Amino acid sequence: MRGAVVAVGDELLLGDIVNGNAAWLGAQLAAVGCPVVHSSMVGDTVDRIVVALRRALEDADVVVLTGGLGPTVDDLTREAVAVVADAPLERQPALEASLRERFAAYGYRDLPDAVMQQADVPRGATVLDNPVGSAPGLRVELGAKLVYAMPGPPHELAGVMQAVLPELAARSGSVVVTRTLHCGGLGESAVAELVQAAIEVPDHVALAYLAGGAVVRVRLTTAAPTVEQADEVLRPLVEAAATALQDAVFGRDDDSLPGVVVEALRAAGATVAVAESLTAGLVGGTLTEVPGSSAVFRGGVQVYATDLKATLAGVPEQVLAEHGAVSPQTAEALAVGVRERLGATYGLGLTGVAGPDVQEGHPPGTLHLAVAGPHGVQARSVRLPGDRQRVRLLAVNAGLDLLRRVLSAESP
Amino acid sequence: MRGAVVAVGDELLLGDIVNGNAAWLGAQLAAVGCPVVHSSMVGDTVDRIVVALRRALEDADVVVLTGGLGPTVDDLTREAVAVVADAPLERQPALEASLRERFAAYGYRDLPDAVMQQADVPRGATVLDNPVGSAPGLRVELGAKLVYAMPGPPHELAGVMQAVLPELAARSGSVVVTRTLHCGGLGESAVAELVQAAIEVPDHVALAYLAGGAVVRVRLTTAAPTVEQADEVLRPLVEAAATALQDAVFGRDDDSLPGVVVEALRAAGATVAVAESLTAGLVGGTLTEVPGSSAVFRGGVQVYATDLKATLAGVPEQVLAEHGAVSPQTAEALAVGVRERLGATYGLGLTGVAGPDVQEGHPPGTLHLAVAGPHGVQARSVRLPGDRQRVRLLAVNAGLDLLRRVLSAESP
Repeated sequence: MRGAVVAVGDELLLGDIVNGNAAWLGAQLAAVGCPVVHSSMVGDTVDRIVVALRRALEDADVVVLTGGLGPTVDDLTREAVAVVADAPLERQPALEASLRERFAAYGYRDLPDAVMQQADVPRGATVLDNPVGSAPGLRVELGAKLVYAMPGPPHELAGVMQAVLPELAARSGSVVVTRTLHCGGLGESAVAELVQAAIEVPDHVALAYLAGGAVVRVRLTTAAPTVEQADEVLRPLVEAAATALQDAVFGRDDDSLPGVVVEALRAAGATVAVAESLTAGLVGGTLTEVPGSSAVFRGGVQVYATDLKATLAGVPEQVLAEHGAVSPQTAEALAVGVRERLGATYGLGLTGVAGPDVQEGHPPGTLHLAVAGPHGVQARSVRLPGDRQRVRLLAVNAGLDLLRRVLSAESP
Repeated sequence: MRGAVVAVGDELLLGDIVNGNAAWLGAQLAAVGCPVVHSSMVGDTVDRIVVALRRALEDADVVVLTGGLGPTVDDLTREAVAVVADAPLERQPALEASLRERFAAYGYRDLPDAVMQQADVPRGATVLDNPVGSAPGLRVELGAKLVYAMPGPPHELAGVMQAVLPELAARSGSVVVTRTLHCGGLGESAVAELVQAAIEVPDHVALAYLAGGAVVRVRLTTAAPTVEQADEVLRPLVEAAATALQDAVFGRDDDSLPGVVVEALRAAGATVAVAESLTAGLVGGTLTEVPGSSAVFRGGVQVYATDLKATLAGVPEQVLAEHGAVSPQTAEALAVGVRERLGATYGLGLTGVAGPDVQEGHPPGTLHLAVAGPHGVQARSVRLPGDRQRVRLLAVNAGLDLLRRVLSAESP
């Protein structure tokens, strides 16, 4: 069963927002055995949505549209679906009444007429409840194919899809399974070379590499009637690749660098505190994306202004005077100081230059970091590429990776 | 002149990464008068890339492909472009030599053969230098149409496009201009109703609404020979809409909420410090995305563990004992405490429950925030929707918005 995604909205074509829905749907549809083979974005005109939907139906058995179901004049997906289905739009009284009720509960009484278009349904279509927002989804059967029109806002899309995914899983009779190795510290070509020397990939398995943020992912994908049967094919390939990659592998599948770090801390019964200069809180924000991080993350200090490195994190004034705010010595003092002041097993300190300006003679991309723990201090200095935002994101990864390596060495 | 984007890569269809390149290209191409009318993603097979490219050429005059130019077996864009161009791939010796030189400089000597495929060029195509990575871009003329094959990594794409955008601007003879109003505190329907009552939009102007993260954007777009001529049409419409929306408008065009806050602080000659609990550093990380924020952001404390609210931020033990870590009183004490301890004009304190677990009897989404300044303390409590990550992001916006409103009231 082949899937397609059509995301509707001028804002997507103009680049005002990124097409996160296509990524989310791609993963969800693959998991229920309906991998996406066609994914497009189209603007807010009926003619173009019609063309996009027809092309998607050429390539796929199930098409999911998102966007264009709202209450304003540029919401045209219902109309386009009606054209392709060759069915008139009919206003459903029950739906209209429940919309009025819903808005009345929020205090809206004089509703613009356009809002009621959310009660229009192509004849023969099924209405899918939207537990989160006002626009219901639609399900239309076109011969042997299925078309779903879903809301655009990501949390509403997820809400309406809850009812759709089980139907698709039952229908597809197969699942698509992906197994991933996450690697740090090697470039994409080097990873590819090691992997290709280690494994031979059969035709029905897809091998791909994703590189980003100083992490390279090796991804093996296949389809089978069950997850177990898919893994019988994938497991030997994954293990052989992992053996070839050795220490570079820091995680698998849904692991993330922060997740791996939180789990390593938890397993060691340890806590961490952070002293962040250029990252200004992004390391703490990233670690706490992981549910359960409160068991291992004490907190931290955002020592953006230089004086706060001394007053908040305990860096000796002498160190700042002799070596400056951006130095390996200051990074070590930050790690030692925040570990002590916040009462954590480990302290992570980062100082550097995000750019675009040079700071105290140090160029953008300069990064000094240190981890202080029960067995002493590990320090590292690197030069990071890219603009301000990229340097800061790479700095977060560098900090988490150093912490991971220290934990790995000290608590095997 | 109509533009199209084709992003190549299985990882896009599987949802492993989000299609950020399409958003970036959409904005860039619109700005040079080549707005995107067709945008699709396609997997790593030659046949499918060929179909996608041909469809794009049906809809547009300029097609930009991204991805699939790398050094591994699943990089197939060159081959697909050669098929559509009906031109053989030829290995260019000068390009091969410069690739070997580049890799030798990094210490790679025994290169896999696949890497040299980056020196293959369809006969008749122009090679575009990649200042950032190893894979050059390609430019192919197909009759009156243009096809560009660009690298996938965003920073490489941006690097190679530097040379392409001026050519497109010269060729298009028109620019597409978008003017945006950013609104907070009103729902999308309410914004749309106010705007539509205030303005009548001519045919050649597109009006659209984007809602996300508790911000609604009103966007007016038109094409004209020059930016000035476009603004002659747009300006009266923007002003009329802004008048109708009043206080809800917090910024325009490229303004962002953190940018508006940093500028308001700068104009007032003021600084801010943050005490973050559930957001764990995301507020600081967000404020410091803004270049020049070091003039106004002192730093902060990430008081994730409850005891740190007292020791780091100065919340009186009695307040914590009487009202708990998640309370309006604690939010106010955080704001007052961090303002004093970090020596800032304003202190922003946030405490709440990100979820998924209930905390001290408070449900996920609970948020108490406060801003302490020279004129006293402003506090606010809200209930935020969504999952853990959404609650934290909405909390960051709520904190920045409260700070904005306080600054607006105190420094007009």
